[in-house]
Amino acid sequence: MGNVDYAYSCSGMNVESAPRVAVPPPQPFFKSLKYSLKETFFPDDPLRRFKNQPASKKLVLGLQYFFPIFEWAPQYTLQFLKSDLIAGITIASLAIPQGISYAKLANLPPILGLYSSFIPPLIYAMMGSSRDLAVGTVAVGSLLMGSMLGSEVNPNQNPTLYLHLAFTATFFAGVLQASLGLFRLGFIVDFLSHATIVGFMGGAATVVCLQQLKAILGLEHFTHAADLISVLRSVFTQIHEWRWESAVLGVCFIFFLLVTRFFSKRQPRFFWVSAMAPLTSVILGSLLVYSTHAEKHGVQVIGELKKGLNPASLTDLVFVSPYMTTAIKTGLVVGIIALAEGIAVGRSFAMFKNYHIDGNKEMIAIGTMNIVGSFTSCYLTTGPFSRSAVNYNAGCKTAVSNIVMSIAVMVTLLCLTPLFHYTPLVVLSAIIVSAMLGLIDYEAAIHLWKIDKFDFVVCMSAYFGVVFGSVEIGLVIAVALSLLRILLFIARPRTFVLGNIPNSVIYRNVEQYPNANHVPGILILEIDAPIYFANASYLRERISRWIDEEEDRIKAAGETSLQYVIMDMTAVGNIDTSGISMLEEVKKTADRRGLQLVLVNPGSEVMKKLNKSKFHVDIGQKFIYLTVAEAVGACNFMMNSCKPSQRKDEPEGWNNV
Amino acid sequence: MGNVDYAYSCSGMNVESAPRVAVPPPQPFFKSLKYSLKETFFPDDPLRRFKNQPASKKLVLGLQYFFPIFEWAPQYTLQFLKSDLIAGITIASLAIPQGISYAKLANLPPILGLYSSFIPPLIYAMMGSSRDLAVGTVAVGSLLMGSMLGSEVNPNQNPTLYLHLAFTATFFAGVLQASLGLFRLGFIVDFLSHATIVGFMGGAATVVCLQQLKAILGLEHFTHAADLISVLRSVFTQIHEWRWESAVLGVCFIFFLLVTRFFSKRQPRFFWVSAMAPLTSVILGSLLVYSTHAEKHGVQVIGELKKGLNPASLTDLVFVSPYMTTAIKTGLVVGIIALAEGIAVGRSFAMFKNYHIDGNKEMIAIGTMNIVGSFTSCYLTTGPFSRSAVNYNAGCKTAVSNIVMSIAVMVTLLCLTPLFHYTPLVVLSAIIVSAMLGLIDYEAAIHLWKIDKFDFVVCMSAYFGVVFGSVEIGLVIAVALSLLRILLFIARPRTFVLGNIPNSVIYRNVEQYPNANHVPGILILEIDAPIYFANASYLRERISRWIDEEEDRIKAAGETSLQYVIMDMTAVGNIDTSGISMLEEVKKTADRRGLQLVLVNPGSEVMKKLNKSKFHVDIGQKFIYLTVAEAVGACNFMMNSCKPSQRKDEPEGWNNV
Repeated sequence: MGNVDYAYSCSGMNVESAPRVAVPPPQPFFKSLKYSLKETFFPDDPLRRFKNQPASKKLVLGLQYFFPIFEWAPQYTLQFLKSDLIAGITIASLAIPQGISYAKLANLPPILGLYSSFIPPLIYAMMGSSRDLAVGTVAVGSLLMGSMLGSEVNPNQNPTLYLHLAFTATFFAGVLQASLGLFRLGFIVDFLSHATIVGFMGGAATVVCLQQLKAILGLEHFTHAADLISVLRSVFTQIHEWRWESAVLGVCFIFFLLVTRFFSKRQPRFFWVSAMAPLTSVILGSLLVYSTHAEKHGVQVIGELKKGLNPASLTDLVFVSPYMTTAIKTGLVVGIIALAEGIAVGRSFAMFKNYHIDGNKEMIAIGTMNIVGSFTSCYLTTGPFSRSAVNYNAGCKTAVSNIVMSIAVMVTLLCLTPLFHYTPLVVLSAIIVSAMLGLIDYEAAIHLWKIDKFDFVVCMSAYFGVVFGSVEIGLVIAVALSLLRILLFIARPRTFVLGNIPNSVIYRNVEQYPNANHVPGILILEIDAPIYFANASYLRERISRWIDEEEDRIKAAGETSLQYVIMDMTAVGNIDTSGISMLEEVKKTADRRGLQLVLVNPGSEVMKKLNKSKFHVDIGQKFIYLTVAEAVGACNFMMNSCKPSQRKDEPEGWNNV
Repeated sequence: MGNVDYAYSCSGMNVESAPRVAVPPPQPFFKSLKYSLKETFFPDDPLRRFKNQPASKKLVLGLQYFFPIFEWAPQYTLQFLKSDLIAGITIASLAIPQGISYAKLANLPPILGLYSSFIPPLIYAMMGSSRDLAVGTVAVGSLLMGSMLGSEVNPNQNPTLYLHLAFTATFFAGVLQASLGLFRLGFIVDFLSHATIVGFMGGAATVVCLQQLKAILGLEHFTHAADLISVLRSVFTQIHEWRWESAVLGVCFIFFLLVTRFFSKRQPRFFWVSAMAPLTSVILGSLLVYSTHAEKHGVQVIGELKKGLNPASLTDLVFVSPYMTTAIKTGLVVGIIALAEGIAVGRSFAMFKNYHIDGNKEMIAIGTMNIVGSFTSCYLTTGPFSRSAVNYNAGCKTAVSNIVMSIAVMVTLLCLTPLFHYTPLVVLSAIIVSAMLGLIDYEAAIHLWKIDKFDFVVCMSAYFGVVFGSVEIGLVIAVALSLLRILLFIARPRTFVLGNIPNSVIYRNVEQYPNANHVPGILILEIDAPIYFANASYLRERISRWIDEEEDRIKAAGETSLQYVIMDMTAVGNIDTSGISMLEEVKKTADRRGLQLVLVNPGSEVMKKLNKSKFHVDIGQKFIYLTVAEAVGACNFMMNSCKPSQRKDEPEGWNNV
């Protein structure tokens, strides 16, 4: 196999029949810059469809790009409407109690939860490209907003300022989201890895559940801190104030909600059982309180909700420091988190149904919906997983299900709010707890442990950071660890010794293929990462250690002494000036030890830079080969037919200066 | 070529004779953790020599590890002493004027420059492993210390506090340096890339030169800011105060120093001409002032220098906030910068002479020398490039040259300080300017531009950041850009289409090898980076874009329709859980479009994780090949002999839901 029949000569090593390693055709600087920028910011090539179209068509396409409703509305059928109607009513029944609950979580008036399920879904229906995303407030975002704003302004002492700050934070979150999309910086969201999100969500869910102990135990006073230790201390220092009525009610409803969820999971046909369960709980709880007057016996209720649609809140936005900085900081953090959830949810369902979602377009949609929301008394909304999953299971076909939900919420706002007067807070807490328990994805954590230990560490640090520190601490630790991993990959790339796989011309890592054989007199190394400033020193040391170790091994085994070091550059994606200096140093060291350095298959970027630097001349085109097999063939040929070159190696000892 | 004679069957594709892609032998978790930790923190394997040695020998080796003097002193010869004596006296003649000048740069009493050339070189001579490093204060470090401390405490109004803060900052710099070495975190220094250092040094040199305008023009008042605009404004708003005597003297000395340097560069034998020039200038300048009483005509002089050796300063260290935080911050920044210079200089000369320097050991030496220095009235020292180069050219053999310099400085301190009374400041400025001009390495910047545009951008941002902003700003920008580059490499990896190189079984990037041919019905992709959370979404989009583009191309050319997508994983160094999810999604999408996904040559890390996840089962061992050639062979075989599989692809349009 591998009939390599080159014609070598000792001096020049003419390799006539072998294909040479090509230097890629030179490209003008601006062309390659343009290419890089395009790959960085327009990897999905959104302008492709606009090419070669008349101006009027371009206008229509542009309109359709920003408002996908113009794309699908003309093809909308009655059948779709039927499906969307069912899905919309189902998610509305979930949205109303969840909205009220989550608003409490953010320390905002409960009615804001309903407002936020009215306007934003309408905006999203016009601008969003997902067919399955159901818009609404999210638990983690609400908690985060509550804890970040609450650390600056007390929501009980200064409710108006707090409310206005919430609108302002929502506004800045929207601005951030929309501008990330407009400037095509959506990839920033990718730096929140799956492991980070699993740990972070689990931690946030734990914290949210802990917060519910207040309502479930009917406590009047509670800590403002969200970490485990403060909450447990707050709970157990006031055992005498626990209200058993409230606790019994809470446990019953949690049990009811979990049973319905379990049932629906087993029997996907009955998805509506778990979808309707929260509303059922609210109705049952309210009836119970109304009939028993339990509100006078320690069961707290929502109380009066104002009738009517969203009031305008444009003039409520706060642009005065020092509160503005708080609002901006909160907006940026919750904006990113909400975006990550919305995009991930949209993508998952798009994958199930095999259609495409443009992340940057989604960001513009979610951002606009939050900006408009902040003008109309809504707070942070995105596409929560739970609601979108119900929407998907209910058979939604298009974003019309969001419009249906919005109309249902509107009707509620106009006529039905008085019905929530007697809704006990403990039921809302039960709804939150049961939703949160689903977010603690321990199976995913086990999966991470099995496949990738580092991802598990990231996940756990996010979890414990959130639970014992705060939501921000957990997030910062997890993101920092994830970035550290990338930097470590570059700073400490793996290097391998390659060996020949018997009866082939294939050379592979001897650790992975224990049957691969060392080639006598030749050390074949593979580097597994780009050679950058961050790893140049390491690689220099590691390569010389490989050579040392190989020479030790050879001495011990009494084999042919080392004459060639072949570096397989296939996996070296790029190189910078520090990397080239490193190669030059390795070459010098090798020369001094009487070894010949040979490169194999440098990629186009590497070849381009080698060609521009003098290294290409130094090593000579004749010591750069296309495959390891060729390089080994040529080295063997030279070792056998030429007189071995005089070894110039000197021991490294101090006394040889 | 490549007589691939496998036995395929349509159902099972038994490939009997071909070597399979191996899953590396399983390793216990702690073993692989130990291996990773070792590669991260002990890449140079410093414990290797301790293996299999008796305890007494281990003790000696350990002592020699921390005090290399015990290693080389026994072999020291008279001949070495002769060389070291010459080198030591040469560098002392440079050290004395430079020391005084740089101390002025840090707004410290000039005598500190002499103190700092007495104790630290002695410590380094015992602990350092470089034979060429000459220890002393550095311009950039002095400037940085002056500007960072000066922004908190005015050195003129509160000289004692300022002095004590300088000792404290030196102490913390030493602690940082030594602990980086002890905890084997030396690789942090590697994150200052060559490009960063070139730009940063150039910028700092420019700023330092600008600062000298004060002394050269004989100005009394001067801005405390270091940026170009403030300095120029300060200079040109007081033109009436310029002193021509001072300016003439300054220009003459700069000219003299530059001419001697130019001469020595041309004639390396006369290295001592440029080495002696600063001392000569000091003597000439002092004589001139003494004889003409120019100090009474606007030429500022050093004035009195206290006789005697370093006083103890251990009790002067400030551990009281708020000044301590300033000292810590300053210490960390100047410590890192000084370390980077010292290590880089040590490494360069070690490379010239072919001996090895252990970075972490050097850090411990430099750190200890600064800690001890801070106890004995010294400020920040390291191995400056200029002084070390003179040392090297003067033919030093060991660190004994540092001891010689130290003794010469001691003699100066004990007896000769009165001689410096009339030394004009303008001469010191001339010495600084001529040293700094050598640091503005525009040739290196041009080299960067030619080879790597991004490195050039990093270099220029460091330069302009330092010149127009501040030293810290320049540094932060350059480091951030360098890190961004690494992150971008991972976030936007290159993907290539591979083609067959005619008359071979080699498959290479069609852009680099324009003669490589597309294989009909098969798309071969290569990914050039590890698949991590940061690029998983991008790769998913990019791969589906490659498939779209290939299908468009095929349609236009009327070729065989696409049936296989081969992904060459050779260059994929690692994969995380997000990466595996991405592969699963790509597999699903491919299935849905009627394409078969085939993997080629996953490395050991990737194979391990594929094996642990269910993807390995999903795709089936039979669709993972060792080489692209084998994969193409198998695909061709199946395309020709089996009935083509029914294509299940559905158009992606909205109306197919």
